[in-house]
Amino acid sequence: MRVGIVGGTGDIGEGMAMRLSRIMDVCVGSRDPSKAQDTCNTCLLSAKECGVDCSVKAGTNQEVVEQSDLIILAIPFKHLKATIEGITGWEGKIVVSPVNPMERRDSFVYTPPQEGSAALYLQKILPPSTRICTAFNNIAGNRWCAISEELEYSVPVCGDDMEAKQIVMDLVDRISSLKAFDAGPLSSSHIVESITPLLLNVARFNKMKDVGIRFV
Amino acid sequence: MRVGIVGGTGDIGEGMAMRLSRIMDVCVGSRDPSKAQDTCNTCLLSAKECGVDCSVKAGTNQEVVEQSDLIILAIPFKHLKATIEGITGWEGKIVVSPVNPMERRDSFVYTPPQEGSAALYLQKILPPSTRICTAFNNIAGNRWCAISEELEYSVPVCGDDMEAKQIVMDLVDRISSLKAFDAGPLSSSHIVESITPLLLNVARFNKMKDVGIRFV
Repeated sequence: MRVGIVGGTGDIGEGMAMRLSRIMDVCVGSRDPSKAQDTCNTCLLSAKECGVDCSVKAGTNQEVVEQSDLIILAIPFKHLKATIEGITGWEGKIVVSPVNPMERRDSFVYTPPQEGSAALYLQKILPPSTRICTAFNNIAGNRWCAISEELEYSVPVCGDDMEAKQIVMDLVDRISSLKAFDAGPLSSSHIVESITPLLLNVARFNKMKDVGIRFV
Repeated sequence: MRVGIVGGTGDIGEGMAMRLSRIMDVCVGSRDPSKAQDTCNTCLLSAKECGVDCSVKAGTNQEVVEQSDLIILAIPFKHLKATIEGITGWEGKIVVSPVNPMERRDSFVYTPPQEGSAALYLQKILPPSTRICTAFNNIAGNRWCAISEELEYSVPVCGDDMEAKQIVMDLVDRISSLKAFDAGPLSSSHIVESITPLLLNVARFNKMKDVGIRFV
């Protein structure tokens, strides 16, 4: 299985690319392919320093979607519409949304679109055969990038296509010490997305850093 | 400080009463005072068996509110309005809401009132001087009642009155191995409340029991 990361040049995207490219074939996309190549170079250099294998290549976002079986949308909510609309070929693909619509006011606030969540918004704008799941919503970019440290978090996965959800959960379980949990249908994704502004508030008001969750 | 538990005869209320009455003065209320007395007897018997002290007394919900500094509303959302309306004397009291509006459909669904959360609904129907906080939203009744077992959970606490929130957090930190976290303003309580149907879904879809959360 080839995993594509659309918007793989931000903090989260780059950290995901580093970790995933050591365990599977990864394709990193960006509107600017030279930036995607920078991310690939970072992955290759980091893997070399650690003496481990790494399989990663760069492309446009369009190429990433065409060449991948599973696509992770590592982009902010505000760029979701423009990014999706510029790409074709989503039909039948597994699309993973770690996207959390939120704003920083006096505290961090969950600001979903009228569909109820970023995931349900994606369901509206992507072709009906796209197999959408949420995952990786509650892991800080800093933690993805700290490649030498284990990620010891629970990862709730929402989705309506049970086969796709199982594939996503298997992927999650292969990364560091992450543990996937079936968190129900895509309509529950608003809860998972809203946990991120909660964690940012917990970090801020309790003087913590990069807070995540574990189901116990 | 005397802690009152309104609706202290359900699973969660009784478990709370058992644990709290061992570390502070507790007043258990019910519409039917004989049921509140049953809960007190359970607390006293359980404490005696364990050879520990226990301070608990029964009353009507009205008496509990009058005689307590901090009142925990251990009642289902659907009974909130009728219970609150039947009681006076809330002014200046700290009121803790562990209430989670939800329904079981194909999965558990968060069903907040139009105010946005049970906590914001309480803010609307209680006198303006009531000091409302959310806490204990994500701990299963079974776990409260398993008195010999530690509660090793994180407890997000939301509220707008910083002094009241600190008192609630100090209370949380005294119970078993619970750890309180300032989770921001009362307007964030919808996130904390919605985590409970998520946890119920995680339990159900992953064959687990009494799932809770920990911030890590």
